[in-house]
Amino acid sequence: MENLSPSLFRRTSKLDLQQYLLEKRNLINHQLQSLVRDYSFPGRLQDAMHYSIEAGGKRLRPILLLATAEAFGANEQKALAVASGLEMIHTYSLIHDDLPSMDDDDMRRGMPTSHKKFDEATAILAGDALLTLSSQVIAEDTELTAEQRIHLIRELSKASGARGMVEGQMLDMQSENREITLEELEYVHRNKTGRLLNFAVMAGAYIGDASLEDMVEMEKMGEALGLIFQIQDDILDITGDADKIGKPVGSDEGNHKSTYPKLLGLDGAKEQKEYYVRVAEQSLEKAGVNESVLSELIDYLSRRDH
Amino acid sequence: MENLSPSLFRRTSKLDLQQYLLEKRNLINHQLQSLVRDYSFPGRLQDAMHYSIEAGGKRLRPILLLATAEAFGANEQKALAVASGLEMIHTYSLIHDDLPSMDDDDMRRGMPTSHKKFDEATAILAGDALLTLSSQVIAEDTELTAEQRIHLIRELSKASGARGMVEGQMLDMQSENREITLEELEYVHRNKTGRLLNFAVMAGAYIGDASLEDMVEMEKMGEALGLIFQIQDDILDITGDADKIGKPVGSDEGNHKSTYPKLLGLDGAKEQKEYYVRVAEQSLEKAGVNESVLSELIDYLSRRDH
Repeated sequence: MENLSPSLFRRTSKLDLQQYLLEKRNLINHQLQSLVRDYSFPGRLQDAMHYSIEAGGKRLRPILLLATAEAFGANEQKALAVASGLEMIHTYSLIHDDLPSMDDDDMRRGMPTSHKKFDEATAILAGDALLTLSSQVIAEDTELTAEQRIHLIRELSKASGARGMVEGQMLDMQSENREITLEELEYVHRNKTGRLLNFAVMAGAYIGDASLEDMVEMEKMGEALGLIFQIQDDILDITGDADKIGKPVGSDEGNHKSTYPKLLGLDGAKEQKEYYVRVAEQSLEKAGVNESVLSELIDYLSRRDH
Repeated sequence: MENLSPSLFRRTSKLDLQQYLLEKRNLINHQLQSLVRDYSFPGRLQDAMHYSIEAGGKRLRPILLLATAEAFGANEQKALAVASGLEMIHTYSLIHDDLPSMDDDDMRRGMPTSHKKFDEATAILAGDALLTLSSQVIAEDTELTAEQRIHLIRELSKASGARGMVEGQMLDMQSENREITLEELEYVHRNKTGRLLNFAVMAGAYIGDASLEDMVEMEKMGEALGLIFQIQDDILDITGDADKIGKPVGSDEGNHKSTYPKLLGLDGAKEQKEYYVRVAEQSLEKAGVNESVLSELIDYLSRRDH
């Protein structure tokens, strides 16, 4: 085994990772579909909830949560409700962000956005319902103790609310058509995108009973991961394939949006991303979980083409 | 004392009730203001959250929750966080319901609605943030055990989500410009308005450690209260004073909205309301809390002029 070349090792590992991602994605999709079916009345509202839940997506946040829980030795079942609640929050935020008064997007992942498929009122209510369902699903999860559920609901609320994701979306809108510094840009992304990714990692470690020291390392890892994710997003907007990323290339430029490549140049942005990859890998090593699928997930996230 | 005429007794009691309502309202207002200040970053999003929280309102839901908890012997402090979370949900629902794509209201309680004062995107995000904060506030409340907090978050999510308030709002929009039956109308209101009022009563009884038998009675009481509330709303739309109710009289008629007076006539609606008042009072008696302020609250809700 020691004689395998790095490239061969990477290729094998990539195949395994694809299989891993596929299995987890199916698990999450199945879970989300039954939760929406069981916890809403049949009708237009439920249709809209299903539509956005089934619009797919990579399920990165819940997979990251499951992978971290497993890396710390927890049973997958213990992490499944929280992972689903997290993806519901992510899905609701996409529905609301796409609205005409926000980012005004007609398409997402090659399909009409919720307000285009249904109407604005239905899209707003479907988002509200998914956000509400997220707390319910975690509160009802009998795999975790009441203390654990309370901890996770509190942390998820903090990550997604007025000092987290919602604040990030607000700042992102306020920073459009305005020159901002790299510090301001990172602040926006730490909230808008970073907080939920960070929650995924922290929640997984918490469910896996990680030590306090390991939690500190995982928090650094989660923060770095959020920035890797965002920088790659910005890079794909320039170098990506429109069919793969599901939106026109160069849309950030058209929006006069502040991006990493704009502030650092394309090469500068790539270097910055590699820096955060090293930070994330160091943290995994210190927390003793670098042999897990998490290392491969970092690599995958930093090189993804959509 | 036995010689006091009913009218004199009612007058004295009304004065006491006004004092009671004022004190509780101040308590809730103070609590809501500090929660929003402490749990959001200063800026436009926080301004919008404050604006809608401070736009006042009668605080009926949290007061009902506090009054029920007290009627069952609980300390007010134990009910305060849940009462605040409940009012945040009510406030977010008003912000979203007022949006152009929903009820399209420019004014509420004599003030510009959130999207008029700020803009649509800010209004949507302020609503999202208040909904998110609601769970956080209950999750962080150290007056209650983790088990109690989990129970209350679950019940509040159920009452306000896709099988509760949000579903009610959806059905209400779908029933506009369409003839509906009394049964359909009650179904809409049970969800849209009733569920949160019912939650207020049930949460208060739960915090007050009510017996299972008393909880069943309080559930009947809460259901009746929701319908009393809605019928009086419909009646005020015809007989009310525009200055007091804060919106033009007759707006339901203009909207072709199904209302109790339209389906039963004005006198029929009043009779229906009195029927539910008797149902509510009977339940209070059976639960042994008819000597509490709850009786007066029912009377107040059924006769309110705004």
